[in-house]
This record gives sequence, structure tokens and C-alpha cells, in this order.
Amino acid sequence: MITPIDNPEKARQILEVAQRRFGLYGLEKTSMREIAEDLNLSKGSLYYYFPDKEHLYIAVVEKEQNQFITNMLETLSSINEPEELLKKYVEARILYFRSLMNLSRLKVDTFNGLRPVFQDVWVKFNDMEISIVSQILTKGTELGIYYIDNMEATARLYLDVLRGLRQTIMFRKETMYLNEDEYETLMQKARHFTEMFIKSLKYNDKNNK
Amino acid sequence: MITPIDNPEKARQILEVAQRRFGLYGLEKTSMREIAEDLNLSKGSLYYYFPDKEHLYIAVVEKEQNQFITNMLETLSSINEPEELLKKYVEARILYFRSLMNLSRLKVDTFNGLRPVFQDVWVKFNDMEISIVSQILTKGTELGIYYIDNMEATARLYLDVLRGLRQTIMFRKETMYLNEDEYETLMQKARHFTEMFIKSLKYNDKNNK
Repeated sequence: MITPIDNPEKARQILEVAQRRFGLYGLEKTSMREIAEDLNLSKGSLYYYFPDKEHLYIAVVEKEQNQFITNMLETLSSINEPEELLKKYVEARILYFRSLMNLSRLKVDTFNGLRPVFQDVWVKFNDMEISIVSQILTKGTELGIYYIDNMEATARLYLDVLRGLRQTIMFRKETMYLNEDEYETLMQKARHFTEMFIKSLKYNDKNNK
Repeated sequence: MITPIDNPEKARQILEVAQRRFGLYGLEKTSMREIAEDLNLSKGSLYYYFPDKEHLYIAVVEKEQNQFITNMLETLSSINEPEELLKKYVEARILYFRSLMNLSRLKVDTFNGLRPVFQDVWVKFNDMEISIVSQILTKGTELGIYYIDNMEATARLYLDVLRGLRQTIMFRKETMYLNEDEYETLMQKARHFTEMFIKSLKYNDKNNK
């Protein structure tokens, strides 16, 4: 995402207004005209910063991703117990995705159409997540309470499963939106899986063979 | 699925021919006329057994499900080592879904349209799977090598995760079909997860607290 560097403060304001609009009305029901009006900007000026609504939307998603990662890194540095960290991570992650999905309320079809544009943002986010989970797991091995053969593969599997559990719920839906019940179901499954995951990390092959 | 009872042998023949046709050409490219011709049956007679192609297709899916369950129950009675059983289960399950998806080669849209009709068949299959996995886990607890608080919830989570991993791969696709690479990826993830799952079952809280 290229943000014109001559006025980063203006770009920041646009992102904030867009985030609020998308959050209230969803991507599809928000227009660039409305965002420009909220800011007392001409449509032309808005398009100078963001070439279209989709790019503006992706910039908002990136902003939220960075916020999530920053928060997680902060948590990571303030807590030393890896089990507590993983449990916090899984809750924060689901909350984050929930707010992100509610931000867009995209029809699944629209979402599928946007996928190619999202590819880079997702890959970057996924890499950051793998790095954060690996750091948590490393804490556990350093403390001598987790036994892990391949750190990255283990982190990747954990994240794959969390994504999979989310998709078993999203699968049946036409809109990228979780209601209260679905959210609760997802949270329970993710918590249960995280407990299972932690047990598997604690299991020491050498002691049991 | 109601099969006319006056000629179960004929119904069996129809299912066999339909299974072969669907397997070769997919649901969408197979017509009731072709199936009738394969059997030297009039279309009218065919419709006497199955009211439409979708019902015939679901009967084929049920046939494959029953085959899968029967095979798994046989395996279950012939092997006593729960770890080996789980590993066999996960391989057989993926192979089964692969053949089932290739059987249909449904567009995801068509598949979504069929969902309500499939609901009963799925629920039944899911219950049978939970029962089989619970039996495997019970063997492990009886042997004193697995430590499980809630058998059914654990079996359910295991199956949820396997479904989720499949969906992380299906997610990007327009047709319900796995190519060689996707199949390999799914197999690796499912194997890795099963190893993790087994470790979590072997982990004994009481010894480690």
C-alpha cells in the first residue's frame, strides 16, 4: 500500500474515518463520496490518497492487522508464562477476526473477488503470526516445559487449525459475519483445541518411550 | 432415502451404475437418461426408483459412507493398538473424502444448493464417526495409555479439526475437487495434527502437576 508521503496526517485521518464507516455500514454500503464528505474533502482529493474503495479498505485492514500484532508483541513482553500467552493469543485472535469481519460484513462472493488483492496482506500477516506463536513456543522450550521438534511447523499447524475451525463455521454462511452464537461456538472450539495443543507440547517423548 | 422394496436388486444395480457414471463424469455432467440407457431401463422405470438425480446421487453418497464405516469397523476389530488405529483412520478418511469429492466434482455453488438435502445424511455420518473415534480413544484409556476427560468432546474436536483442515484447502476452490498437490498437503497436515493429537492424549495431567 502506497501512502502519499507529503501528508501522512491526512492519510491517517482518512483511514480513521473509513474504518468507522466500514464498521458501521460494511464495505459494500459505504461509498467514497460519503467518506470524502465526512472529512470535508473533495472526492478528487480522496482519490489522490487511495485509488479506489478496495485499496482504502485494504489499508484499513492492514491498519487493524498492525494494531493486533503490536498488541500481541506488547502482551508477549509483559507475560512470561507460555500457557497463559497462548490462551491470551487465541482469544485476542478470534476477537480480532470478529471485529475485522464485522468491519466488512462482506458477502462471501465479494470477499472471493477481493482475494487476489488481499494476497500480499495475508501472507505478511500470516508470517507475523507464525513468528509470534514461535516466540511463545520458544519460551516454553527454554523453560523446559515444552518439547518441540520443529518450531515453525508446529506454529504453522496451530494457526492452520485455528483457521480451519473458523472455516467450519464460516462455511455455511453467505456473509462474512459471525453472530453471537457462532462466535461463542468458535471460541469454545478454539479454547478446547488450545488446551489439547498445550498438552501435546508438554508431552515428553523421551520420558515415555 | 426410500428404496422401493419390491426389487432391491434393481435398486442396487442402479446405484452401481450411477456410482460409475458420477465417478467418470461428475454429478453435473451425468443425466438420468444416460443412467437409464446404461441399464437398459426406461427413464420412467428409473424415476420409479429415484425421484430425481439429486436423490440418486445422495443414495450413492450414502452407499459410500456405509462402505467407509463398515471398513472402519472391520479395521477397528482387527487392530488393538489405538495409535495405529487413529493413523489408519485419518488416512482412510481423507482417501474416502477424496473419492467422494471426485465422484461429484461439484461446483461449490451446486454443492451449496444441495446442502439442505444432504443435512440428514451428514448428521448420521458425523454421529457414526464420533462413535468410531470414541471407540478408538476408549481402547487407549482402557490400556492406560490415554488420559481423556470427556471422550465425546475429544472425538468431536478431533473430527472438527480434520474437517477444518480440509476446508482451509477447499476454501480457495470453485470445484469440490482435490488435485494431487492439494491432496498431499491435506494428508501431511492431517498426519501432523494426528501426531499432535496423540501426544495430547498421552499427556497425563496428574503426573505433571
